[in-house]
Amino acid sequence: MIKFQINAIGKLKKSPVLELISSYRCRIKNSLVICEFELKKSAGLPTENLKLREAELLMSNVPAKSFVFSMDERGELLNSHQFADLLQQKVQQCYSSFVFIIGGAAGLDKSIHDRSDQILALGKMTLPHMLARLVLVEQIYRAECIINHHPYDK
Amino acid sequence: MIKFQINAIGKLKKSPVLELISSYRCRIKNSLVICEFELKKSAGLPTENLKLREAELLMSNVPAKSFVFSMDERGELLNSHQFADLLQQKVQQCYSSFVFIIGGAAGLDKSIHDRSDQILALGKMTLPHMLARLVLVEQIYRAECIINHHPYDK
Repeated sequence: MIKFQINAIGKLKKSPVLELISSYRCRIKNSLVICEFELKKSAGLPTENLKLREAELLMSNVPAKSFVFSMDERGELLNSHQFADLLQQKVQQCYSSFVFIIGGAAGLDKSIHDRSDQILALGKMTLPHMLARLVLVEQIYRAECIINHHPYDK
Repeated sequence: MIKFQINAIGKLKKSPVLELISSYRCRIKNSLVICEFELKKSAGLPTENLKLREAELLMSNVPAKSFVFSMDERGELLNSHQFADLLQQKVQQCYSSFVFIIGGAAGLDKSIHDRSDQILALGKMTLPHMLARLVLVEQIYRAECIINHHPYDK
């Protein structure tokens, strides 16, 4: 069993985007945990300090021996099959935990990129972080389908 | 006033994804029309015939002198600012109508690409066409914000 984990800034309330994320999440056969973090007393913090403190939260619960992706539109662009192949290759290299880091509106601190195994882009376009979360969950589901030769991905 | 038009295969029923699309659509200041097409009696059609007949529907209501984008993950990757710049540049060249063509599950027929002014990718990853529609509407809204120096896009 593979463990997928998304560490993200911002708590999603009951909303259409949460409903969509939940619907894809239910279809994922492996474990997918979404950990939401929110900085208390962030108002008025300079952006660089905010990003640094968010980075500490985002990296606080990364299981040992995880393969860590930081999500950034300036990262590597993979198509869905290349993403599935990469996951499969890492599983063959004995990784069983994958962590995806999604920052907040201020973006990710450089320290996250330094501590990541791969910087991954869902596209070059900037997405609101809630849509990025949705697209990522859908791509994790799609990767599972590709690996398992499920007809979802044509 | 610019007219944006999305021509897409598949009718969206009341759903979380439709709610999200509607919420971005309401925020767009220019006109955005979404035209949904569905092929009757498509069952059993070979894929190539299906794509050809869908292409006829998708191109049936393109206003004269429109700038036509066909959406394909193998197309050109622009970031949100490059997309906004491109729209602004085309407006300066006197285009006032932009049509975005989104195919169905079978993909787009080659004839659509031939008749498009630009093949545009939202990312390299394959998205379900309903999510592609959502991401596109959000990017149109974001492009407006960039052009109007609205603080939405940071």
